[in-house]
Amino acid sequence: MIYLDNSATTAMYPEILDIIKKYAVDNYYNPSALYTKALDISNDIKQAKQKILDILKGSGNICFTASGTEADNMAMFGVKKFKDCKILLSSIEHSAIYQCAKRLESQGVQVEYVKVDNYGIVDEEDFKSKLSNNVSLVSIMHACNETGGVNDIENLVKLTKKVAPKAIFHSDGVQAVGKMPINLNKLGVDLYTFSAHKFHGMKGVGCLYIKKGVNINPIIFGGGQENGLRSATENVAGIISTAYALEKIYKNLDIQKNTNIIASIKENLVKLIPNCKINTDTGRSLSNILSFAIPNTRGEVLVHLLEDKGIIIGTGSACSAQKAHTRVPIALGLSKEYFDGMIRISISNSTTVEEVQVFLSEFKNSFEYLNGVIAGKI
Amino acid sequence: MIYLDNSATTAMYPEILDIIKKYAVDNYYNPSALYTKALDISNDIKQAKQKILDILKGSGNICFTASGTEADNMAMFGVKKFKDCKILLSSIEHSAIYQCAKRLESQGVQVEYVKVDNYGIVDEEDFKSKLSNNVSLVSIMHACNETGGVNDIENLVKLTKKVAPKAIFHSDGVQAVGKMPINLNKLGVDLYTFSAHKFHGMKGVGCLYIKKGVNINPIIFGGGQENGLRSATENVAGIISTAYALEKIYKNLDIQKNTNIIASIKENLVKLIPNCKINTDTGRSLSNILSFAIPNTRGEVLVHLLEDKGIIIGTGSACSAQKAHTRVPIALGLSKEYFDGMIRISISNSTTVEEVQVFLSEFKNSFEYLNGVIAGKI
Repeated sequence: MIYLDNSATTAMYPEILDIIKKYAVDNYYNPSALYTKALDISNDIKQAKQKILDILKGSGNICFTASGTEADNMAMFGVKKFKDCKILLSSIEHSAIYQCAKRLESQGVQVEYVKVDNYGIVDEEDFKSKLSNNVSLVSIMHACNETGGVNDIENLVKLTKKVAPKAIFHSDGVQAVGKMPINLNKLGVDLYTFSAHKFHGMKGVGCLYIKKGVNINPIIFGGGQENGLRSATENVAGIISTAYALEKIYKNLDIQKNTNIIASIKENLVKLIPNCKINTDTGRSLSNILSFAIPNTRGEVLVHLLEDKGIIIGTGSACSAQKAHTRVPIALGLSKEYFDGMIRISISNSTTVEEVQVFLSEFKNSFEYLNGVIAGKI
Repeated sequence: MIYLDNSATTAMYPEILDIIKKYAVDNYYNPSALYTKALDISNDIKQAKQKILDILKGSGNICFTASGTEADNMAMFGVKKFKDCKILLSSIEHSAIYQCAKRLESQGVQVEYVKVDNYGIVDEEDFKSKLSNNVSLVSIMHACNETGGVNDIENLVKLTKKVAPKAIFHSDGVQAVGKMPINLNKLGVDLYTFSAHKFHGMKGVGCLYIKKGVNINPIIFGGGQENGLRSATENVAGIISTAYALEKIYKNLDIQKNTNIIASIKENLVKLIPNCKINTDTGRSLSNILSFAIPNTRGEVLVHLLEDKGIIIGTGSACSAQKAHTRVPIALGLSKEYFDGMIRISISNSTTVEEVQVFLSEFKNSFEYLNGVIAGKI
């Protein structure tokens, strides 16, 4: 199987099975208990947090959640709102942000959506025009889950703090972490979300980075774990393995190799389908994603044709794959005939040039076959 | 290591490592994606849910969460409130319920706490006296996490529905599931919480059973997984392994064996410490828990003395072990000199009679040593 949907999820590093054995089968103690063996686990959790902070160059706390979605929800609901405050989002935030915004809007909170360009990158002028002193929260994704477009978060944070010094800046880094170097201190974000299963960790583990001095409210209440911020018995193996996976993905990251592979896919694609729209501006995006849209074509059919050849590709975001999906294509400026034809190729560090050659050849076959069917020739 | 704190958490069944390999390393696909391999995973999740419903004899849906705590939070916050409504809880609900209630109270929702007897079992007369037509939600734990006391949920549901037909009845079954047969249909509950790591499943997986026809709001928003009730990429291995663990724990459950072991501990204990208070009424409790309180003694010290001998026991609830803890002892009618001396022994299906003999002997030694220290003799 050639797997080119690594933005949806990734294969867990097999060594993590040993970590799970260590912390779930052998030393399975509840870290909240009082005995030394439990305290040892609690210390291992602290060390995992520190390792993550070191890798991502952050100064603050890592709060473990069960998903990027939960971390996004913590940011959206946990940041204190005040009377007549405003929240700013990009128009293509992941549904984990967007649906929280819809909920907050229904409760009377004002939300404004900042335009993005054709590559999913926030329009700085539009952002500036929507900034005001009453902004309580900004949430702009670091890298777009559909196009891979990378926002200049450092600049957006500076712009925000100039106009609304008390605003909390959150960035959803679910796609960015593990795919590009991250320096949280330099970015200047107050809150930052990421998710282990996007970088070969376990499913069911998310993280919210909380900059030192930033206070948010919990959204899940109970035994007071995670310094009272997120109650529940800690998912010990999930936590420890997240630090492991993060360290390993950065050791293996070869941006130049990824860039070359994505460039070769793009080059072939443009030749094969001259009227396709490329949604990824490869100079300003993650090195591992190529998003494109084919007019008057159902991407889903291509997905199935390729799966029959042993190749897995994605459509838009996996999280919205099974639902009508027009918010992002519209925001990217695509016209209607492209809506169903969104394809996302996302490679991992272990994707090989040979695999991509097979993909390109089979993609060509499938596309030509599909066009033949549409034209009534097959 | 002799582990007698199985109410805090349990050792994961080692075979679950194979399930994790299957769903995280080999077939790691995101179940929301469109390709067949992802749909296969999605079907496996559906089957796991059905298996759980079959084992627990429920008619409805299993919503997977990341913890019992999260499932409790869903029940507490997700049930629709109406003007001037009231919530009824027992006075010794787990902090995952209690802290939600405190939050709701701060938002103006009326909460009433039903008394329990010395064994942590709800006082039926007090319950009836607090029932009224404006009750929107009742949350009474099935079995008490501290004492093991089992509430007659079936009866409490009937009483509730008679007075407040539209009230939603939730029960926290985190301690009960896997320790006693459960028949959700017979109990009549609308919502029921349980947690995989309490029955040798993975940490980081909880479940909320939702009876057919019962509607609640989500507390986490996003991609719309779990029928829109709980967004986040599904923790596939966690979900599949929960069904596996549940099936296995019931196959291995030997209530008579557990009952005998707990009875022998109790018998020895009463001889050794005549003035200790037994908080577990072994006729009306889970078969695997014995809770007791020793006057003028710090339970924590006994925990450490026994750990040095290779034996792990618990104090109160692990979730509150590291915090001052008086709510439950007070509700159980203990006087002040017993507050620090709470000990909880909780066995698993694999606890042996030989292990318990070692425990009893070492407990006696530790207790006598500690008494000697207190008396200034050592």
